[in-house]
Amino acid sequence: MIESIKSSPLYPIANPKSIAIFGASNNATSMGTGLLGSLLGLGFEGEIYPIHPKEDRVLNIEAYRSVLDLPKVPDLALIVLPTRVVSEAMDACGRKGIKHAIVISGGFKEVGGDGVSLERDLVAAANKYGIRFLGPNCIGVANPGYKVNTTFMVFEGAPGFIGMASQSGSFVTQMFSYLSCYAIGFSTAFSVGNEANIDIVDCMEYLGACPDTKVIALYIEGIRRGRAFVEMARSIVPKKPIVAFYIGGSETGSRAGLSHTGAMAGPDKLYEGIFRQGGIIRARSMTELFDLCWMLGSFPRITGRRVMIQTHSGGPGAEAADACGRAGLELPSLSPETIKRLSPFVPHTGSISNPLDFTFGRNITDYYWEIPKVLLEEKNADVLLYYFSMSGGTIERTIRQLGIPPDQIAEKAAEMVNVQSNSIIRLLETHDKPFVGYTFLSLKDQLVRKLVERGIPIFPGPQRAARAIEAAYQYTCLRDKILASVFQEKAASR
Amino acid sequence: MIESIKSSPLYPIANPKSIAIFGASNNATSMGTGLLGSLLGLGFEGEIYPIHPKEDRVLNIEAYRSVLDLPKVPDLALIVLPTRVVSEAMDACGRKGIKHAIVISGGFKEVGGDGVSLERDLVAAANKYGIRFLGPNCIGVANPGYKVNTTFMVFEGAPGFIGMASQSGSFVTQMFSYLSCYAIGFSTAFSVGNEANIDIVDCMEYLGACPDTKVIALYIEGIRRGRAFVEMARSIVPKKPIVAFYIGGSETGSRAGLSHTGAMAGPDKLYEGIFRQGGIIRARSMTELFDLCWMLGSFPRITGRRVMIQTHSGGPGAEAADACGRAGLELPSLSPETIKRLSPFVPHTGSISNPLDFTFGRNITDYYWEIPKVLLEEKNADVLLYYFSMSGGTIERTIRQLGIPPDQIAEKAAEMVNVQSNSIIRLLETHDKPFVGYTFLSLKDQLVRKLVERGIPIFPGPQRAARAIEAAYQYTCLRDKILASVFQEKAASR
Repeated sequence: MIESIKSSPLYPIANPKSIAIFGASNNATSMGTGLLGSLLGLGFEGEIYPIHPKEDRVLNIEAYRSVLDLPKVPDLALIVLPTRVVSEAMDACGRKGIKHAIVISGGFKEVGGDGVSLERDLVAAANKYGIRFLGPNCIGVANPGYKVNTTFMVFEGAPGFIGMASQSGSFVTQMFSYLSCYAIGFSTAFSVGNEANIDIVDCMEYLGACPDTKVIALYIEGIRRGRAFVEMARSIVPKKPIVAFYIGGSETGSRAGLSHTGAMAGPDKLYEGIFRQGGIIRARSMTELFDLCWMLGSFPRITGRRVMIQTHSGGPGAEAADACGRAGLELPSLSPETIKRLSPFVPHTGSISNPLDFTFGRNITDYYWEIPKVLLEEKNADVLLYYFSMSGGTIERTIRQLGIPPDQIAEKAAEMVNVQSNSIIRLLETHDKPFVGYTFLSLKDQLVRKLVERGIPIFPGPQRAARAIEAAYQYTCLRDKILASVFQEKAASR
Repeated sequence: MIESIKSSPLYPIANPKSIAIFGASNNATSMGTGLLGSLLGLGFEGEIYPIHPKEDRVLNIEAYRSVLDLPKVPDLALIVLPTRVVSEAMDACGRKGIKHAIVISGGFKEVGGDGVSLERDLVAAANKYGIRFLGPNCIGVANPGYKVNTTFMVFEGAPGFIGMASQSGSFVTQMFSYLSCYAIGFSTAFSVGNEANIDIVDCMEYLGACPDTKVIALYIEGIRRGRAFVEMARSIVPKKPIVAFYIGGSETGSRAGLSHTGAMAGPDKLYEGIFRQGGIIRARSMTELFDLCWMLGSFPRITGRRVMIQTHSGGPGAEAADACGRAGLELPSLSPETIKRLSPFVPHTGSISNPLDFTFGRNITDYYWEIPKVLLEEKNADVLLYYFSMSGGTIERTIRQLGIPPDQIAEKAAEMVNVQSNSIIRLLETHDKPFVGYTFLSLKDQLVRKLVERGIPIFPGPQRAARAIEAAYQYTCLRDKILASVFQEKAASR
């Protein structure tokens, strides 16, 4: 693995100082114009050179008839042209001295027939000049921290800690608003397309070295360089977790993937083996892929599988217990010390086993400070799983019944939510144990939103939380295993 | 099964004309006051009689020292008192001639010890006067169409078609805002608590006869009357589907359920058998329970398992194909006629197999009218699964690039969304085939929201959609099987 991302061919692609764009025009509905719009919309700070055969200005930026006319050699060429003229544009880029490109255009190998030879020509044109490129048939890169978004979609949300390499462009661009609902986001996301030159292994290498990336997400329809993939993964996993979603394993998924990127899927078992060897955690859906990234980016070290569940509701506690059991987690008994410390807070209708059901009716602030404090200090448990249920509406109703004038209710409710969220955040700052939430409220609901925005994963439903906790523990084990084998190899070679 | 819900002991409980409430006061934080607040908040139109030993008025309603002082016999007594005085209150209700009650208070059988005998006393008091009651240790009933909400939480959302009977009160009250996110809701929801008198089978009977209930949801920690449960289910399933989530099957879930309602869980296999005999569809989480209700209430008749997938994105199409395959659904080939009708709409980079990937770039309105019209008329398929991806943000950006002045962008975007949603709704009005969506957008995003509010299920992610479609087809089969066996029994007895 490389030491610095600057050694990666993807560095100038994700962090270009200047970009030549082929295919943007003043036609608002064209794909190329959309990409330029996305770049401008995010506020890209480098130089942009639209290449257009007729227009003098494109979206109000000075345009050039040919890439050869440019006043300087840009770091990156972004090509969104009809399939048949892409090679020609690549050749012109080579003549100009450009060394890096993204080919958005499709119609190559993935459509078969003529597309196969067109892709061969494209690769030859690039190789002639030593150009490294992403694509074709991809959607480019989003590096929001550097204000780069070459995709068709508007970037929504904020930069985050997830580094993504995807064999589907949609799973980069169509996830912007999805991730922002969870207050997570991409550090850098690559859409690899047909991988004619740069492939998913190269992206993993970049993301492994990327300091903003805490966890790597992969969407896979088929792996071409199996051994390189496994070796790259094994070199990264000791430093950061990798989660992959592979769809080629079912017959229907395999057929769909083939017609999408032309990737040959392999049997599920083969990929299961590849992921296991690589120390990669496997997700079963895109939702789960990002759930696991959320968890692993937030709490990369989990010491075991013993979960303590705090609720004030029997049903949600029982569902969480069931979900933990089915996910392979354990619900330890409370230590005598913890039972003693908790007893003042447990009403006679509540339960002092695990899950802990405090019911309602006691001082509500205990639920956010005294009780979780005791549980975070419980030696018998590795994780606290915490249930959130008080909606903003219910908080406001309670305040209204206290006789607060209507014009002050919103303010009082906000104050209450502040006190609650601050106490939980303060607890987490002073305790090492991972704290994971689950809820049936919208993640936009007041208290939940505040905590999610502070980086606490609160999953919609206990199954997703349990699965994420299990994956985090799985990472601990995978990492230890790889480190142990590296140590053994080193010892053996001495 | 009863012919009319009016014959059910639950009828006066869910549709009372007058309620005596024990335990409400002017203390805003007490549970009883919360319940009264919920009733008032929803705008209950019947009479309410707070019973309070000291106060003359409670929340500004005339209060009575004793239930015996009431000017008339109310339909329902709502009891939220300390455990030890509940029997006494029940006895007073009996003496007054009240025939129906809800006992919210906990501290009975579920806590063991003294609680067991306190529950025995309570049952005896009710039996003495022939009172039928829900609870104890429950949260009551929500019948939003009749403006009844006896639960602690504020009712959010609107009445819907889901009839619920739950062994957890939280799964009634804490689902109000959850369901409203999906624009679905309860017709009537019962929290059964310890089932000392009225049990879950009685609730099923009521909901089976309830004209507003299209689908019945059950949350189960343990079934007491197994045979009655199966028979009741078999009498209901030919008319409407039943979906159940059972948590007692795992060891951790079983332990948690026991301490919650004192229900004895049985092994997973036993319950699997009970559900199968009853023709009940089993959900694996609360999320899935309501997903399946959403689907089954929207499209109760599905003719087969052949799914057509419409997307403009390869990855989401491949994920949906994978999800359908894993859920046991089929992706049929398109008929030659459909291929011919679709070919004008498919660009050379798109795919004309199933999943259909139209990519972007063509006339966007085709995607919402011409194309789904052809697919809804495809004879080889039973369901259309449709992918939604254009966020409000992207629509607005596209409009902005068309040079529309900033102050008109929101209006133009709303117009565009209206055209799109109206064309889909018009298609559904004129075609019989079920139309199911999936998306990674928030269900609050413009177009998706409009369609969800018009009753179209659009699931977050394709796995949830595939599972729901499979369950709907499962219902078709279960229903046919029960009807066939009823027919055989009748034929044999002739």
